[in-house]
Amino acid sequence: MWEGGGEYNVARGLKRCFGLDTAIVTAFADNPVGRLVQDLIYQGGVDQSYVRWVGYDGIGRTVRNGLNFTERGFGIRGAVGCSDRGHTAASQLKPGDIDWKSVFGRDGTRWFHTGGIFAALSESTAAVAEEAMQAAKRHGVIVSYDLNYRESLWQGIGGQQRAQEVNRALAKYVDVMLGNEEDFTACLGFEVENVGEGFDNLQIESFQDMIDISIAMYPNFAVVATTMRNAKTASRNDWGALCYHDGKLYQARMRQDLDIYDRVGGGDSFASGLIYGFLMGKDPQWSVECGAAHGALAMTTPGDTTMATLSEVEKAMKGGGARVAR
Amino acid sequence: MWEGGGEYNVARGLKRCFGLDTAIVTAFADNPVGRLVQDLIYQGGVDQSYVRWVGYDGIGRTVRNGLNFTERGFGIRGAVGCSDRGHTAASQLKPGDIDWKSVFGRDGTRWFHTGGIFAALSESTAAVAEEAMQAAKRHGVIVSYDLNYRESLWQGIGGQQRAQEVNRALAKYVDVMLGNEEDFTACLGFEVENVGEGFDNLQIESFQDMIDISIAMYPNFAVVATTMRNAKTASRNDWGALCYHDGKLYQARMRQDLDIYDRVGGGDSFASGLIYGFLMGKDPQWSVECGAAHGALAMTTPGDTTMATLSEVEKAMKGGGARVAR
Amino acid sequence: MWEGGGEYNVARGLKRCFGLDTAIVTAFADNPVGRLVQDLIYQGGVDQSYVRWVGYDGIGRTVRNGLNFTERGFGIRGAVGCSDRGHTAASQLKPGDIDWKSVFGRDGTRWFHTGGIFAALSESTAAVAEEAMQAAKRHGVIVSYDLNYRESLWQGIGGQQRAQEVNRALAKYVDVMLGNEEDFTACLGFEVENVGEGFDNLQIESFQDMIDISIAMYPNFAVVATTMRNAKTASRNDWGALCYHDGKLYQARMRQDLDIYDRVGGGDSFASGLIYGFLMGKDPQWSVECGAAHGALAMTTPGDTTMATLSEVEKAMKGGGARVAR
Amino acid sequence: MWEGGGEYNVARGLKRCFGLDTAIVTAFADNPVGRLVQDLIYQGGVDQSYVRWVGYDGIGRTVRNGLNFTERGFGIRGAVGCSDRGHTAASQLKPGDIDWKSVFGRDGTRWFHTGGIFAALSESTAAVAEEAMQAAKRHGVIVSYDLNYRESLWQGIGGQQRAQEVNRALAKYVDVMLGNEEDFTACLGFEVENVGEGFDNLQIESFQDMIDISIAMYPNFAVVATTMRNAKTASRNDWGALCYHDGKLYQARMRQDLDIYDRVGGGDSFASGLIYGFLMGKDPQWSVECGAAHGALAMTTPGDTTMATLSEVEKAMKGGGARVAR
Amino acid sequence: MWEGGGEYNVARGLKRCFGLDTAIVTAFADNPVGRLVQDLIYQGGVDQSYVRWVGYDGIGRTVRNGLNFTERGFGIRGAVGCSDRGHTAASQLKPGDIDWKSVFGRDGTRWFHTGGIFAALSESTAAVAEEAMQAAKRHGVIVSYDLNYRESLWQGIGGQQRAQEVNRALAKYVDVMLGNEEDFTACLGFEVENVGEGFDNLQIESFQDMIDISIAMYPNFAVVATTMRNAKTASRNDWGALCYHDGKLYQARMRQDLDIYDRVGGGDSFASGLIYGFLMGKDPQWSVECGAAHGALAMTTPGDTTMATLSEVEKAMKGGGARVAR
Amino acid sequence: MWEGGGEYNVARGLKRCFGLDTAIVTAFADNPVGRLVQDLIYQGGVDQSYVRWVGYDGIGRTVRNGLNFTERGFGIRGAVGCSDRGHTAASQLKPGDIDWKSVFGRDGTRWFHTGGIFAALSESTAAVAEEAMQAAKRHGVIVSYDLNYRESLWQGIGGQQRAQEVNRALAKYVDVMLGNEEDFTACLGFEVENVGEGFDNLQIESFQDMIDISIAMYPNFAVVATTMRNAKTASRNDWGALCYHDGKLYQARMRQDLDIYDRVGGGDSFASGLIYGFLMGKDPQWSVECGAAHGALAMTTPGDTTMATLSEVEKAMKGGGARVAR
Repeated sequence: MWEGGGEYNVARGLKRCFGLDTAIVTAFADNPVGRLVQDLIYQGGVDQSYVRWVGYDGIGRTVRNGLNFTERGFGIRGAVGCSDRGHTAASQLKPGDIDWKSVFGRDGTRWFHTGGIFAALSESTAAVAEEAMQAAKRHGVIVSYDLNYRESLWQGIGGQQRAQEVNRALAKYVDVMLGNEEDFTACLGFEVENVGEGFDNLQIESFQDMIDISIAMYPNFAVVATTMRNAKTASRNDWGALCYHDGKLYQARMRQDLDIYDRVGGGDSFASGLIYGFLMGKDPQWSVECGAAHGALAMTTPGDTTMATLSEVEKAMKGGGARVAR
Repeated sequence: MWEGGGEYNVARGLKRCFGLDTAIVTAFADNPVGRLVQDLIYQGGVDQSYVRWVGYDGIGRTVRNGLNFTERGFGIRGAVGCSDRGHTAASQLKPGDIDWKSVFGRDGTRWFHTGGIFAALSESTAAVAEEAMQAAKRHGVIVSYDLNYRESLWQGIGGQQRAQEVNRALAKYVDVMLGNEEDFTACLGFEVENVGEGFDNLQIESFQDMIDISIAMYPNFAVVATTMRNAKTASRNDWGALCYHDGKLYQARMRQDLDIYDRVGGGDSFASGLIYGFLMGKDPQWSVECGAAHGALAMTTPGDTTMATLSEVEKAMKGGGARVAR
Repeated sequence: MWEGGGEYNVARGLKRCFGLDTAIVTAFADNPVGRLVQDLIYQGGVDQSYVRWVGYDGIGRTVRNGLNFTERGFGIRGAVGCSDRGHTAASQLKPGDIDWKSVFGRDGTRWFHTGGIFAALSESTAAVAEEAMQAAKRHGVIVSYDLNYRESLWQGIGGQQRAQEVNRALAKYVDVMLGNEEDFTACLGFEVENVGEGFDNLQIESFQDMIDISIAMYPNFAVVATTMRNAKTASRNDWGALCYHDGKLYQARMRQDLDIYDRVGGGDSFASGLIYGFLMGKDPQWSVECGAAHGALAMTTPGDTTMATLSEVEKAMKGGGARVAR
Repeated sequence: MWEGGGEYNVARGLKRCFGLDTAIVTAFADNPVGRLVQDLIYQGGVDQSYVRWVGYDGIGRTVRNGLNFTERGFGIRGAVGCSDRGHTAASQLKPGDIDWKSVFGRDGTRWFHTGGIFAALSESTAAVAEEAMQAAKRHGVIVSYDLNYRESLWQGIGGQQRAQEVNRALAKYVDVMLGNEEDFTACLGFEVENVGEGFDNLQIESFQDMIDISIAMYPNFAVVATTMRNAKTASRNDWGALCYHDGKLYQARMRQDLDIYDRVGGGDSFASGLIYGFLMGKDPQWSVECGAAHGALAMTTPGDTTMATLSEVEKAMKGGGARVAR
Repeated sequence: MWEGGGEYNVARGLKRCFGLDTAIVTAFADNPVGRLVQDLIYQGGVDQSYVRWVGYDGIGRTVRNGLNFTERGFGIRGAVGCSDRGHTAASQLKPGDIDWKSVFGRDGTRWFHTGGIFAALSESTAAVAEEAMQAAKRHGVIVSYDLNYRESLWQGIGGQQRAQEVNRALAKYVDVMLGNEEDFTACLGFEVENVGEGFDNLQIESFQDMIDISIAMYPNFAVVATTMRNAKTASRNDWGALCYHDGKLYQARMRQDLDIYDRVGGGDSFASGLIYGFLMGKDPQWSVECGAAHGALAMTTPGDTTMATLSEVEKAMKGGGARVAR
Repeated sequence: MWEGGGEYNVARGLKRCFGLDTAIVTAFADNPVGRLVQDLIYQGGVDQSYVRWVGYDGIGRTVRNGLNFTERGFGIRGAVGCSDRGHTAASQLKPGDIDWKSVFGRDGTRWFHTGGIFAALSESTAAVAEEAMQAAKRHGVIVSYDLNYRESLWQGIGGQQRAQEVNRALAKYVDVMLGNEEDFTACLGFEVENVGEGFDNLQIESFQDMIDISIAMYPNFAVVATTMRNAKTASRNDWGALCYHDGKLYQARMRQDLDIYDRVGGGDSFASGLIYGFLMGKDPQWSVECGAAHGALAMTTPGDTTMATLSEVEKAMKGGGARVAR
């Protein structure tokens, strides 16, 4: 039992693996479930000052906290997730609820990360995301966005078409755009050709084409990064990543047959590693290697978030073997 | 982790402790949580043919399965429950959804049990309860009802006043009315005087007065039964029960300082024991003793439902000690 | 801790994965262990009306419930089973104990499954199996039989020679004969040549030869089906299946290097999948694929029985990958 | 999951709490269950050189290891035991199997303890007990015997009448006779009058009468000791003990309302404490206090055997409170 | 497995139960054990900015993290603690290591709490405590001190005599002095007469005498508070508290026969409740009730620290019963 | 949670897998941690008569018991060990503490095993090791030594240079020298060339060269044995072993891609298997196969020590597959 969430996982990773102070902006229903999440976020080290606590009605008719049930998968049995997050406090956030001026101005935030899960929670959260991103831009804060397409989130509120409207509208505020190949296709409508099993040169070229189209359409993208995951079985994936920056494409070490313990959060840990690299002024190659290594390590432990340390990430970036450390 | 629910617990107790075939009429969202509940109800032995499975939207916006988080309590730390059951499939049941003719006619149901929790889920469930009770009466099926007042369920939909309107309207169909002293007060508006700590003769007289008023107002009540629970600490309760039938009041053995492991479901197990007695043609004294003993045993095990066997209940009815059986 | 048994596992799989109503005919000693098994079978959804409960002597001198201790194995450490099932109530079943007329006539049974484990429990169970199969034939009920050779069961009561006498005598009542290559050899005396490591064409031909001999000897076999398991390690098996029907051999998708969590029950889940196919009027290719996929999934979860759903089986039949479902 | 047994528990207590070297004479079936018991007995520190390992048939038809399933009880729910020990290797021991001359002669055994459970396993174990006790007497080894009446063990082999024949025959070899009031009545036919709830002077006199009768009938009893347990609930017992020696009756500190975690093994731990006292040359008052304190502590921990240390026993003998030790 | 420590527990309680921001000043060895403690302190919500991380030698020769093994006790079996904290980083803190000017000046600390455990770790920690308390006084920060006598800590470094020297020297900086009766006697040399079992008026007078002596000797004590714990058994304690302030003695509600789950941390939770009261400007009666209620609740949950919420404490202060909250 | 230690693991393996009586010579602090270790060693079957129990100071300032925290690793995440064993009772052993004459003379010890971990604990333990080895030689006891280089143990007491001085001094008493390639290099200063990933003929030649140098320098080495472990990932290792004896090199079956559950103790289990072979008079090929198979099996179970049986080892030596045994 643990806390998690696409955007939160990035904040937690930046704090607990990479040592940067982070905060989360969200809302919880004030009941024992919410207080348990609070307890877990304390452990995650992510500042909760911006969290809005909404009164609970004792039943969950008006507001709830979201729950996610996950099954890890094993071999040919794929991982399964069951989301139970209708009517959450977060989904009821609306423009004006958050004092973004304080977040980005007074408190000196340097980087803002949000994404396609938050934007899909409701009509109002898409508007909150836009409000936040505009405020971030006004304060010169870097904006990253993880497309994170979830068909189930969109199916009741307009489907993939609406997903594309929302994500395309938000994309124009984005400096660092993240996602996997499916996300780019589903959320922005870009097609990646020939993505079969395994990663060969042809496929990396396809990714490059996709990125080229992205850049052409959204010249505001300073960075475009994508993970490549080929789930041979639930227990064994090929895992890689690409990062575009300033006209060039950087490719992380490809890991064939990576042993997977819990796939959830691999993409988020990639994001936090990559963001760490850019925030610390590392070059794009270092950053994409850091993201890929961090994501690979995160999938060797249970839970949505990382248990890795920076020194473990650095060792994995160097392709460090698995000999015992003692 | 287990399944539970006021009305279901009675059905499960009648099946697994007392050996009578029972079925549940309810609805679940068709997702892994619902299928887990199904799995647990299989173990409970309660027939699921009448369960309606409602398609899930992948998120829980339109329909969910209810969750209940409970903390058992210990000593001065009282038990805590947190209900997360807004928007459940059960709360969305409406008149016409269930083919009561088949339930009560074709399938030979002999006893129908429902209560104030189901009636409080929504406007429509109160109507479903009425529809069901009317149908039961038409088919000559005995109707029992457990008042089970939950303030949190009513607070958003009219409060205690609405609770009384609904429960009073349904009470006229009831043959066997169950509840504790708080339930009678809150749901039907009857006051029990002088209910302090402990059970003395004065207090039992007060209960008797309450029951007299009940009978005067609802001459259709063939049986009125109430549990008496004095929670000295979360770990130690005084526990007793009264049962009115045919002009007389029957009192179960009073258990002082009963050791409590998990209080949840004590009242439901009282109900199933009492119903078993009447269904098997036992006299009211036997029936109320059976209910009280079953409830007492149920509170010595985790979970909402009974783990006792009929022979254990019979032994406890006789005040059988706690010597090892081997 | 769970319930299991060669024949029971098939009934449970048909119910909980495939949704068909099934019942078990067996006997238990009436003690807390037996009641625990009853509890678990409730969860399994298998009807227990035909179960005979035999009085317990408090010690286990006259009758017991069987226990099986299993160790899953890992890598080069093979799985280990320790059977403790002498003197069980099931092994003491004798002809006349069961009212087969009711089972097959009154209650409308369509398919009867038994096998070489039950037949090996004692002299009398072999006779009960024969009695049941004869009754099934009289009522036009399809009979399937899983050879399931266990050397330990036979060693004290006549060894492999006796195993062959019993199984050959019963084989003439069988419509659908199941087993792996070892079973056919040990129970029926058919030799499969050249079965080394891995599955090549030569070996599949050998299986075909074996099946040809079976059909020639037992023209009553409408279906002969066999699993192919090559245990490279305890954690990684090659897994496949063949099914003969109406003059043709159907081969399921071969799964190389299948990740194994708990091998126990793979064959039984193959059987329930195959039976489901034939019962639902699917063609042999579909049926053998269904059995093989179900068996493969069953080995990714703990316990003797399936935790898979029909839709998961269908996805696995199509070679569906292991991407997350959410 | 742990090892246990009336006589074994005494040996383990003497070793691990009291630091004396002990050995067990018994037999096990050589299968993984037996080897697990061996592993647990290693932890118990009891020498296994005299254990006979009997070949296993793979099934448990010819020989098994005994299993005991226990439920601890809580409040009004009494503890439950379910014995599954028919056909055990121990029950098949017969005169001549054990080289008692080595046990008592060569190896310098000073004290031999057996009892009514071993003697009830089968006809042959009663004979083995007699053989052993005779040998012990020949070598000048002190013999203690715990009556430990178990109705279930006797019911299939002659009932209480046979129990009395066997125990009375063995009693004449006994130096130190142990049991609770029920044991003396059931095994030796001595009646204790007026044993109701609680322990008052009248009842202690009754015990004294019973002991007087014992001594008169068996002048070979140097010590007669009995525990007094009044199970108010499964969680709270009154607990005391008496010890007769050399014409005088010694009474241990009476513990009212002792908190019970797991009652199993209380009597055995009394026995080991008492034996320790006499073996170390302590006076009878010290010995009976030691036994009572050890038994009281043993019932505060899970399992059949003691987890107490000698210093904890000594502290409890002095009525030492429950303040934290740090 | 959890984090804990006399002074830390107070800081954690003030944060997680009472909602005040707190920080800890200590040192850890930088190894996986230290990082686990860090993780747990994050969950505790206590600021770690002042924690010094000391390089680890890979072995623990030069510096370690302290471990404490605890056994909860049950009934007559008392709780047991085993401290393994020689050579800890905290014990090696020395004057000058901490920038107290920043702690008390720059960062606006309002209250400083330390005590007799920290002061007993080594010669240098007593000096650090004095340095800190002097600095606190300079900055007008309130100083509280919990005597917390641990015989084992002092026995190797001068025993009770040295304990009194150190504690008496530090006492002159203390505004709020805390401890139980044993602490005052052992650390400051004040005798409490007649403290037997239970709390009667006579004994409370004795406490009052002790407090009078304290005040006379240390007029700087603005508050003197003591818990009263009578461990009838490890599972049941009488629990109360007294608080002197401004010439008057305030007594908290006496709780007879309080059910104890884990006694550790009761005194620390008393301290945090009392401090919260004074910090929030509550009157002494409220404060001592708050401390006693918080301590009582903390002993109903596992771990050294509180799991209670402020509203639970407030309910317990009113003597709120143990009825279920739902 | 379990007991372990390089030398102890060998003794435990020889006892519990191979059935030989073994004893351990070490020292423990007499506190609950030490008594827990004692309890675990009882289970391990290793005689504790030679263990010295050192009084505990209640804190761990003067003496402690060593703790080792381990994380198993998974895939690319390597195993991690954190040693917390400064100031242990074992490290404070000094010459004269142990009566080696009794160990080797009176008690008939046939083989003495120690190694580089014990020798690295402190200056005095290196001296104890030398004292012991000299005594062993005097009594004609075979001496084996496992180099077991641990950088962290040496870094504070002279580093690798001192490690070489100590190990080289002790090497001249050794009959059977064990270690992996890293150990030989670090402890004795022998270089193995070209040891990359995987094991090819070239590399085996390098090992042979290293062994040749060893023999030349220490003609007292009757046997030199080394494990070869290539940690492709934490979950998959190549595993092999070489053994030199009497001029010839024997190579165990190479196991590619061995599934690893817990790598710790693989080398120790190799040692116990090899020693068993030589002690039983098996030939070197048998012995090295036995060691390699035992080590391979030990790494499929949790804990530092073996859970394998001799028959499982023999099966693995024959390359026995992973089919189920039942």
